[in-house]
Amino acid sequence: MKKVTIIGSGNVAQHLLKAILHSSELHLQQILVRKIESVENLIDPTKIIINYGDLLESDLYIIAVSDSAIREVSLNLPFSNRLVAHTSGTMPLDSMSEKNRRAVFYPLQTFSKTKSVDFKKVPLCLEAENLNDLEELKALGSFISNNVNLINSQQRKSLHVAAVFVSNFANHLYTIGEEICKENNISFEILKPLIKETAEKIFYLDPKHAQTGPAIRGDQNTIDAHLNFLKNSEYNKIYKLLTESIQHDR
Amino acid sequence: MKKVTIIGSGNVAQHLLKAILHSSELHLQQILVRKIESVENLIDPTKIIINYGDLLESDLYIIAVSDSAIREVSLNLPFSNRLVAHTSGTMPLDSMSEKNRRAVFYPLQTFSKTKSVDFKKVPLCLEAENLNDLEELKALGSFISNNVNLINSQQRKSLHVAAVFVSNFANHLYTIGEEICKENNISFEILKPLIKETAEKIFYLDPKHAQTGPAIRGDQNTIDAHLNFLKNSEYNKIYKLLTESIQHDR
Repeated sequence: MKKVTIIGSGNVAQHLLKAILHSSELHLQQILVRKIESVENLIDPTKIIINYGDLLESDLYIIAVSDSAIREVSLNLPFSNRLVAHTSGTMPLDSMSEKNRRAVFYPLQTFSKTKSVDFKKVPLCLEAENLNDLEELKALGSFISNNVNLINSQQRKSLHVAAVFVSNFANHLYTIGEEICKENNISFEILKPLIKETAEKIFYLDPKHAQTGPAIRGDQNTIDAHLNFLKNSEYNKIYKLLTESIQHDR
Repeated sequence: MKKVTIIGSGNVAQHLLKAILHSSELHLQQILVRKIESVENLIDPTKIIINYGDLLESDLYIIAVSDSAIREVSLNLPFSNRLVAHTSGTMPLDSMSEKNRRAVFYPLQTFSKTKSVDFKKVPLCLEAENLNDLEELKALGSFISNNVNLINSQQRKSLHVAAVFVSNFANHLYTIGEEICKENNISFEILKPLIKETAEKIFYLDPKHAQTGPAIRGDQNTIDAHLNFLKNSEYNKIYKLLTESIQHDR
């Protein structure tokens, strides 16, 4: 069994931890955290460590911490020439100390602590400094996901921007939808099938051709009525800008 | 069996037609269209008519045409005092001629011709001028959907605005994500699990609390890097506006 060590305790670290614990081919060697409490119910306590000096040998060390902490963590590792990957969508390979063999293990998914995720379906975006490490990373990744991709730094950067649009921003539109429902005493439940269908549609139709609604129809009466309805100036601006953007695509 | 007649041949009309044909409790009386070809493969040709004069008696007539044509269609109906509903999210009840008993039968879903929809899960938003008709409409609606809602005109109007945000605008963000992928030689496939998970998450967490990403984290380094990456000025504007809006919600 291949040994993997996780460093970090945030959403990505915890979902990775669960995926590795569920895998019959990977062995979770240790998890290094700042506070034991953050993961103590998830795993055998003897595997939780808080000192870099207690790190045992592993086939892969995954640094799953915030972007700004990656460099410091990589410098703190008390060994060299081992395979070390970060999980960031943004940071380049050389954000890590060069004393180890650097790699990226970026799971392209939105993780919240209270919602479980089928890790087998999470696209893993992998990158390494040399071909051997890339092969090793691919093998390790494929033990927890069926969706393993070789993605270079430039592609990863663009993917991360795209992910913000399709996930964070889409979710913000759901928040606005919920807000409008609340203000008008309507249950948000009624919008959920529409949200689900809109997302599922892209598996059948590319989104450009799946577009419906007043903007793509050029239905100016409805657009004007909606803008008139939206007293919140921020929502009004978002409505205008996205309507124009849809119409530029026609 | 209750008899229903559809007027129109667009996306909503066709999905309604299929739902009624699948129902064992509703009988499709006729469908009135401008061009027989638009629905000729979907139904027994004797039920397709093109003249208002050929309309038979029905328990419900559903006007599923564009908003701007609803009034004219309602005026053309050669009978009075029957139950007639339109399917628009925007138009008021009195957009129809008062010679019939007016109602609304608004399916809150995104319909494309080439993608089938489980109509049982489509929220129906119903409204009628009197209580008897509302009860009748509820009974008819519940034969094709398990999600029947009484929604007044003001609520329906706000729901329609909310639907534009969570569906048309969210779909446009998917289009932008696909565009960014294309420009960087990445398959859009890799974003699909993220899109699906983001939409499914709202069934477990309300969207405000499900938010992740650089905006909600206040990760200005990543935000700046993304804005710098986005050379398309429209995408850049959308990124800025939605990031600010997420941050106002914090």
